Amino acid sequence: MRTLFVQVKCELGDAYKTAAEAIESVEHVSEVYSTSGQYDLLMKCYIPEDLDIGHFVTEQIQRLPGVRDTFTTLAFKAF
Amino acid sequence: MRTLFVQVKCELGDAYKTAAEAIESVEHVSEVYSTSGQYDLLMKCYIPEDLDIGHFVTEQIQRLPGVRDTFTTLAFKAF
Amino acid sequence: MRTLFVQVKCELGDAYKTAAEAIESVEHVSEVYSTSGQYDLLMKCYIPEDLDIGHFVTEQIQRLPGVRDTFTTLAFKAF
Amino acid sequence: MRTLFVQVKCELGDAYKTAAEAIESVEHVSEVYSTSGQYDLLMKCYIPEDLDIGHFVTEQIQRLPGVRDTFTTLAFKAF
Amino acid sequence: MRTLFVQVKCELGDAYKTAAEAIESVEHVSEVYSTSGQYDLLMKCYIPEDLDIGHFVTEQIQRLPGVRDTFTTLAFKAF
Amino acid sequence: MRTLFVQVKCELGDAYKTAAEAIESVEHVSEVYSTSGQYDLLMKCYIPEDLDIGHFVTEQIQRLPGVRDTFTTLAFKAF
Amino acid sequence: MRTLFVQVKCELGDAYKTAAEAIESVEHVSEVYSTSGQYDLLMKCYIPEDLDIGHFVTEQIQRLPGVRDTFTTLAFKAF
Amino acid sequence: MRTLFVQVKCELGDAYKTAAEAIESVEHVSEVYSTSGQYDLLMKCYIPEDLDIGHFVTEQIQRLPGVRDTFTTLAFKAF
Amino acid sequence: MRTLFVQVKCELGDAYKTAAEAIESVEHVSEVYSTSGQYDLLMKCYIPEDLDIGHFVTEQIQRLPGVRDTFTTLAFKAF
Amino acid sequence: MRTLFVQVKCELGDAYKTAAEAIESVEHVSEVYSTSGQYDLLMKCYIPEDLDIGHFVTEQIQRLPGVRDTFTTLAFKAF
Repeated sequence: MRTLFVQVKCELGDAYKTAAEAIESVEHVSEVYSTSGQYDLLMKCYIPEDLDIGHFVTEQIQRLPGVRDTFTTLAFKAF
Repeated sequence: MRTLFVQVKCELGDAYKTAAEAIESVEHVSEVYSTSGQYDLLMKCYIPEDLDIGHFVTEQIQRLPGVRDTFTTLAFKAF
Repeated sequence: MRTLFVQVKCELGDAYKTAAEAIESVEHVSEVYSTSGQYDLLMKCYIPEDLDIGHFVTEQIQRLPGVRDTFTTLAFKAF
Repeated sequence: MRTLFVQVKCELGDAYKTAAEAIESVEHVSEVYSTSGQYDLLMKCYIPEDLDIGHFVTEQIQRLPGVRDTFTTLAFKAF
Repeated sequence: MRTLFVQVKCELGDAYKTAAEAIESVEHVSEVYSTSGQYDLLMKCYIPEDLDIGHFVTEQIQRLPGVRDTFTTLAFKAF
Repeated sequence: MRTLFVQVKCELGDAYKTAAEAIESVEHVSEVYSTSGQYDLLMKCYIPEDLDIGHFVTEQIQRLPGVRDTFTTLAFKAF
Repeated sequence: MRTLFVQVKCELGDAYKTAAEAIESVEHVSEVYSTSGQYDLLMKCYIPEDLDIGHFVTEQIQRLPGVRDTFTTLAFKAF
Repeated sequence: MRTLFVQVKCELGDAYKTAAEAIESVEHVSEVYSTSGQYDLLMKCYIPEDLDIGHFVTEQIQRLPGVRDTFTTLAFKAF
Repeated sequence: MRTLFVQVKCELGDAYKTAAEAIESVEHVSEVYSTSGQYDLLMKCYIPEDLDIGHFVTEQIQRLPGVRDTFTTLAFKAF
Repeated sequence: MRTLFVQVKCELGDAYKTAAEAIESVEHVSEVYSTSGQYDLLMKCYIPEDLDIGHFVTEQIQRLPGVRDTFTTLAFKAF
């Protein structure tokens, strides 16, 4: 299992709808936080070895309602 | 009570309407300043412990008329 | 009197109309330059003590035809 | 043969269509990866000496469906 | 009285010493917060009309122990 | 309990020592990842309500051996 | 004669039309290159002493078909 | 005569010495301001046609005591 | 096998020594290019599934002579 | 022959020595300009097909006295 962090900038006023949708409908999204800073949300995802991370971000995160931009950070090792 | 600073970039020419609306209609906005620099406004908010800061920013600040972008900075400690 | 510098990014091809309009119609604009770099114009304004600088920028500069973005720098002291 | 790297930001949700199209229809695209970070794709291209790289990027990469922005990096020497 | 916000980046590990020193020894510093984001501290200062803001920042804030960089934002109007 | 994310840029070659030290010696650090992108590490911390987050970052994270810069992002709400 | 460099970001797929138009129809454009990096084109212009550089950029370069953004760099001295 | 704006970042605490030195000892510096934002000073210079601007900035501004970085913006036309 | 791209900024004048050392002494470095843009080198690495990517970058790339900064981009899928 | 543009940030006060040295001692440097903006110099180089551009930049430009940073832009096509 790989750990992926996706920071999401949402359309103004939509972040909480996007977050709720992500938790509810996107299987591998494990944790979703609204956050301080430039991005509205930080999603922590656990991606099975056999799932293409890029496809997951493109098809499942970027297509959530209210998403305006995404920045992905992959965890190499959990200490 | 937590102290939150929200820098707001407004639609061109709208900053003062946004500011007036914020002071008037958004309960936890304590101070609003028009400012130098890249952002038009700086809002200082006092957020009760039981209120979700992210929800406040998303639903109450980002939906104010004239808002184009927001950047949130949370105060950890007031000295 | 306070000295304010406003860098202005204009709609493509409009900078000289914006500049002419500023000099002609905006009272406290003292000098306007087209400039090298990322911004198209640099406006030097003298703002009387009783005039709100933020209001001036928002209502008088940002609403000039052709303005796309503004960045304000206030002079604290003239040596 | 010259080696060119093109980072591509795609319209939300389109990266995998863009990638598939690139591999299928753009002759000199050698490798395409979906990637972490701000860009969605990284394309590695081998450009024959007699082909204009700028023209290739402009006409063949930028016109792929779903492309929103491109950043090109040329390899000077392969060690 | 003018309201000035100074964001301060400190030497690693020094922010709380800098903050304590500011509150204790710098007269016009009204509020100091440790904050989220790239800067360590946000100082809110009330500057009398007869005091040069630039001089205040340069001589009194930038010379506090542990300061590594400063970014100043002036409030034009308090709504 | 509050959730805090701290991105850490380390001295070249030191990230894994910093990470090991963090996990071992800093009580509220819950998860530490080495990551892709500009920063070397991402630390997820759970901070008790009575602990000052700014003090924690300044005194416990920034003083870890090998730390060169930090960027803090606070989670407002966990969905 | 002054030497001016204008970096041009074009609409996706349009850079070569813009370049051809510039060479053909803009008198003081001396050299035009498609380039690596974030911008699509670099134009080297020789501007007679009696011609306003800002006006030239605004009216003749920014109005070329396909231009999306410009960044101007003036040469002070040719060694 | 050409108008040149030079933004100057100074060593911490030195901006006012740098400004005083500039006004006193650098002939073509016409106005010097301490300013809000990331830079400490903004210098407005009038440069005779026969003086090399780059040489002026390099040899006379950058060598002032306390200068840490400079950013030059040339005025093309004064409206 | 995972594909990793590491952009490397080197000490001035050292890039080619760093590149040679990387190709010669770092097992999983597959291709090294000197490149246009802000970074000096782009390294393409194939990392076996059982090797920690973060550890590889930290211990083997960042410790190469002449390295000044690194930026890592992971390929999720090769099309 | 390939056309290469190298923007050079110099040590404070050194740009003109660096430029003179470049013109005098670096064979493929064709034109050197001191420029407006963040960089001090822009060098236009003509690089023979058999010369490694990266090696040229690393060994001949970056090692000039006074160089602090370089940014290279390659011309793909001259219109």
